[in-house]
Amino acid sequence: MLDPFPVNSVGLVAPQSLVIDTEISLESGKKLQSYEIAYETYGQLNADKSNAILVCHALSGHQHAAGYHTREDKKAGWWETCIGPDKPIDTNHFFVVCPNNIGGCHGSSGPSSINPKNNRLYGPDFPVVTVKDWVKSQAQISDALGIDQWLAVVGGSLGGMQALQWAIDYPDRLKYSVALAAAPKLSAQNIAFNEVARQAIMSDPDFFDGHYAEHDKTPRQGLMLARMLGHITYLSDDMMRDKFGRELREGKLNFGFDVDFQVESYLRYQGRSFVDKFDANTYLLMTKALDYFDPAADYNDSLISTFQQARAKFFIASFSSDWRFPPERSREIANALLYAGKEVTYAEFEVAEGHDAFLLPIEKYINTFHAYMKRIASESELI
Amino acid sequence: MLDPFPVNSVGLVAPQSLVIDTEISLESGKKLQSYEIAYETYGQLNADKSNAILVCHALSGHQHAAGYHTREDKKAGWWETCIGPDKPIDTNHFFVVCPNNIGGCHGSSGPSSINPKNNRLYGPDFPVVTVKDWVKSQAQISDALGIDQWLAVVGGSLGGMQALQWAIDYPDRLKYSVALAAAPKLSAQNIAFNEVARQAIMSDPDFFDGHYAEHDKTPRQGLMLARMLGHITYLSDDMMRDKFGRELREGKLNFGFDVDFQVESYLRYQGRSFVDKFDANTYLLMTKALDYFDPAADYNDSLISTFQQARAKFFIASFSSDWRFPPERSREIANALLYAGKEVTYAEFEVAEGHDAFLLPIEKYINTFHAYMKRIASESELI
Repeated sequence: MLDPFPVNSVGLVAPQSLVIDTEISLESGKKLQSYEIAYETYGQLNADKSNAILVCHALSGHQHAAGYHTREDKKAGWWETCIGPDKPIDTNHFFVVCPNNIGGCHGSSGPSSINPKNNRLYGPDFPVVTVKDWVKSQAQISDALGIDQWLAVVGGSLGGMQALQWAIDYPDRLKYSVALAAAPKLSAQNIAFNEVARQAIMSDPDFFDGHYAEHDKTPRQGLMLARMLGHITYLSDDMMRDKFGRELREGKLNFGFDVDFQVESYLRYQGRSFVDKFDANTYLLMTKALDYFDPAADYNDSLISTFQQARAKFFIASFSSDWRFPPERSREIANALLYAGKEVTYAEFEVAEGHDAFLLPIEKYINTFHAYMKRIASESELI
Repeated sequence: MLDPFPVNSVGLVAPQSLVIDTEISLESGKKLQSYEIAYETYGQLNADKSNAILVCHALSGHQHAAGYHTREDKKAGWWETCIGPDKPIDTNHFFVVCPNNIGGCHGSSGPSSINPKNNRLYGPDFPVVTVKDWVKSQAQISDALGIDQWLAVVGGSLGGMQALQWAIDYPDRLKYSVALAAAPKLSAQNIAFNEVARQAIMSDPDFFDGHYAEHDKTPRQGLMLARMLGHITYLSDDMMRDKFGRELREGKLNFGFDVDFQVESYLRYQGRSFVDKFDANTYLLMTKALDYFDPAADYNDSLISTFQQARAKFFIASFSSDWRFPPERSREIANALLYAGKEVTYAEFEVAEGHDAFLLPIEKYINTFHAYMKRIASESELI
């Protein structure tokens, strides 16, 4: 007999999908006549639909945020730490929706799905999408699901950026915005790392200008390099030191170019296993969405003006060792919200885990996040 | 008529070379029966040979540290800022020698030179060399030049590591060791970045297991990616912000994968121009030399014991925004030297320029470095 799922897991979950037949105009000027969205839900929507939480995923995320697809699954969804009964996003109270963003590669319309116009793979012809576009499509998804107002929109990293954009673009359609390990826009260094990742993918001879699928190829090496590089930026220097130090894989130097150090072996493994589950064109799109995110650009570069019209309450959190989006970047957001007269709770956690911390079971972070979410439940009379 | 060289430049310099016919045993266990060294000298060796300074180059450096090879040269040597009359390494007093390290690609024996054993290119068969190996070969070079003792061995980054290794391995053959922007060993994160760079080169289909020259190819894309990535780690986040911010190259987003931001264009340019002047196999060797540097490994991992036998005086300097080898790493060196009872001067500069700062004309740094070098000249009765 298989082990039962952990008691605080949502357990078995079923993939769902819906088709949005309303045209969407994208920031690029391009349009999608219709698109498919793969999504999952956890918990129960209450009668007055006042307990719905939208979870937005980050760069390499998808709709499978919690639970298991089969009894045999070894790994739960990517945010199992935070979604489930008695967890911060408590499915005893909340109804959680997590869609795969358009441009993704896990079932929603994207480069690896079929373009209904010509019945061929989109490939590189799938339009560049932005955080604003995602939020717009999520508003259409909300309509389709009959949810007029989200109790909260929640996300970490690129997901946090969507939570902020929601509060700016649809002020009446959410009560709380929760942005963890985010930034108000990317720095030149952030963009530079993304650009190296993109060049790695696009210069792979198996990329074929993005038409690799038609050639029965995949730019494995390029995508592997992109992921290895990304991975370095998700971990902190301290954590890498604690985890690997200068430990040698075979106890001695090899005086060659095979793996000497554990950290090399770890990175190669991370790179290789990513290639089997992610699409290169989607990776390109996601990094561009990050680079382009800059909500203040529409408001004379004033983040304060940007947030002026927001009506949500905000929870902003950052992690001391996150050098991808360091605490300063979250403080920019929190300060702008304060100056804009919004209600904002800001938490900064002293942790070693780097950018990835928002995904990890770090007690002080989980407890604080949980407390905030309880406050949301209580203010909304769900508990 | 061409403009004259700047007055504080060493002006026209001639490439020199010598052949070392003494066998050298390398840390890997391999040997070179003989090897060629390309080098340059600036200033005049005095009668008692007491004013000789060895300058060691870093990852992508070479022997051309100062001056110009022709009247038409637009660019001077890589450390023109610091070497020349009235500069920190003042050629009015000092005789400066800068060799290209073995494994290099600027005239010294390395992957792109001919293996005398079989009259074919070394290519990937050139042995892995370490900082210790370089210092050993530099000791042989000293013998060949008739220099029993260097007044100082000086370098930045990987060059600084050589300056430290000299003090450990040949305590009687130098009076001062000057290590700028260095570290006592690489962190896991440092190694991780090097590994991504190596994977970029080695996975380029034009790499041919290092035998690219025999195929009339060069792994351009891989080497370009490696350099782009390296470049990000040489600059600080702040400096990138000041230099590029989120400035758009064409004043608007393109919603495609061509260059949007200035920083992307800059990095691509840096990558492309590097490929024309550097050899991929050498890049691999240099990154391994960095990864392997760990002098304390021979002394029970105690940096204090490592420095115990040193007899030199030390100048250690670091730069606040250097996130490749941050000030903490230089402080580890300075503290270990102090505990080992050595005379050490430590300077930390508050600058925005990142790791590359040691190459740049930053007044407070140049003045302090100059003052220390004057002290060396004065203590040695050269002035």
